[in-house]
Amino acid sequence: MKMSIMTLFPEMFEGVFGHSILKQAQEKGIVSYDVINFRTFSEDKHQRVDDYPYGGGGGMVLTPQPLFDAVESVKKTKDQAPRVILLCPQGEVYTQKKAEELAGEEHLILLCGHYEGYDERIRQELVTDEISVGDYVLTGGEIGAMIVADSVTRLLPGALGNETSAVTDSHSTGLLEYPHYTRPAEYRGLRVPDILLSGHHKRIDEWRRQEALKRTLDRRPDMLRDADLSKEDLAYIELLKKDRSDA
Amino acid sequence: MKMSIMTLFPEMFEGVFGHSILKQAQEKGIVSYDVINFRTFSEDKHQRVDDYPYGGGGGMVLTPQPLFDAVESVKKTKDQAPRVILLCPQGEVYTQKKAEELAGEEHLILLCGHYEGYDERIRQELVTDEISVGDYVLTGGEIGAMIVADSVTRLLPGALGNETSAVTDSHSTGLLEYPHYTRPAEYRGLRVPDILLSGHHKRIDEWRRQEALKRTLDRRPDMLRDADLSKEDLAYIELLKKDRSDA
Repeated sequence: MKMSIMTLFPEMFEGVFGHSILKQAQEKGIVSYDVINFRTFSEDKHQRVDDYPYGGGGGMVLTPQPLFDAVESVKKTKDQAPRVILLCPQGEVYTQKKAEELAGEEHLILLCGHYEGYDERIRQELVTDEISVGDYVLTGGEIGAMIVADSVTRLLPGALGNETSAVTDSHSTGLLEYPHYTRPAEYRGLRVPDILLSGHHKRIDEWRRQEALKRTLDRRPDMLRDADLSKEDLAYIELLKKDRSDA
Repeated sequence: MKMSIMTLFPEMFEGVFGHSILKQAQEKGIVSYDVINFRTFSEDKHQRVDDYPYGGGGGMVLTPQPLFDAVESVKKTKDQAPRVILLCPQGEVYTQKKAEELAGEEHLILLCGHYEGYDERIRQELVTDEISVGDYVLTGGEIGAMIVADSVTRLLPGALGNETSAVTDSHSTGLLEYPHYTRPAEYRGLRVPDILLSGHHKRIDEWRRQEALKRTLDRRPDMLRDADLSKEDLAYIELLKKDRSDA
């Protein structure tokens, strides 16, 4: 997969793209990140990329020309029509399902504004997807683009080694994860639950499933609606709810 | 404000902390970021920070000792009890409201796991807040910590210059932003709406408010529930809903 990232701050990406899984995925040839300063496409003699908003008001607005031309410059090298993704607070809220969808593409183009708003014609004509990584305000789209790059890259075949594939899969199973414990069995007076030291694998699996259900019910009951639940899971959830309403 | 960030990949933060608003906020003395490799606190002779999970299963688990000691090392320098924030998919979903709450603190400690799960005792004893930046799976907590650092820093008094303060305030007004346009008035056959060129400021304000309401209704109707709406706003929303059900 190729990801082309359009930004006014290309150096912001060096730390994230230069370490860990994202670095390894590039070295393995699974993904390539092309970070492009779209200011270099500006036809303005001072290389300006923004201007005052029509109709007045504070804040500057990104003009269409540099972004249109920057996107076309990377499109030319591909036959397929790439997804052009605008990172912005008005976008569709990003989810693991969207990450999985994007992981099936050959080429993603990510547009990062910074400070400024986008001229609406960029939305209307250039962009195929608008993504918001969450309901909070950020200085620019760059960290949002890192979120998309990281979450999509780790889904590409071969990107994760064996040592990493099994962890942090809340949101991929549809439930929050059960509690993990490692050595020592006692630390500052806090003990690992006996069941995990028992060696009864069937009971451990049951305990873990129940803890995952309990945590999801407590923290994110909205997730239970879409989770893949067995008859036993549903019975356990009913029991938990009953216990709580009795208490 | 001070932010202490505990990570196994300190270099990942250089790009984001070294540019734009976050760099300027440090230079102005508004915030200081202290990025600490908690591996250096490991008492293991090979400086290991993780171990196999009790009860079996894939994936490694971060042991409590290095993180407990790393957090205590930065707590010692402060009288006030800092917030200790774990970035993890099981956390409370991060919002602008939470960013505003955290912006009132003097010291935030952000814990970033990577690949591994966290030993549950870290949650139980060390952590005051668990935050998830969204419903997607990331390689580690680092990009989540950047989200918190960026969204909180821009709220600190003096962090944003005049040129930047007015933009991207979707989520702070409770509505998605209205469309922005800048020059040229026509680009590739796409024209700026006449109203914005009219000079009638009152009508422009009305148009913008209505466009913001329309966009929020179309894309994020859930946000209207908590937005601060006037009688006129509510009437316009009813009109939009009626138009749509008639269509």
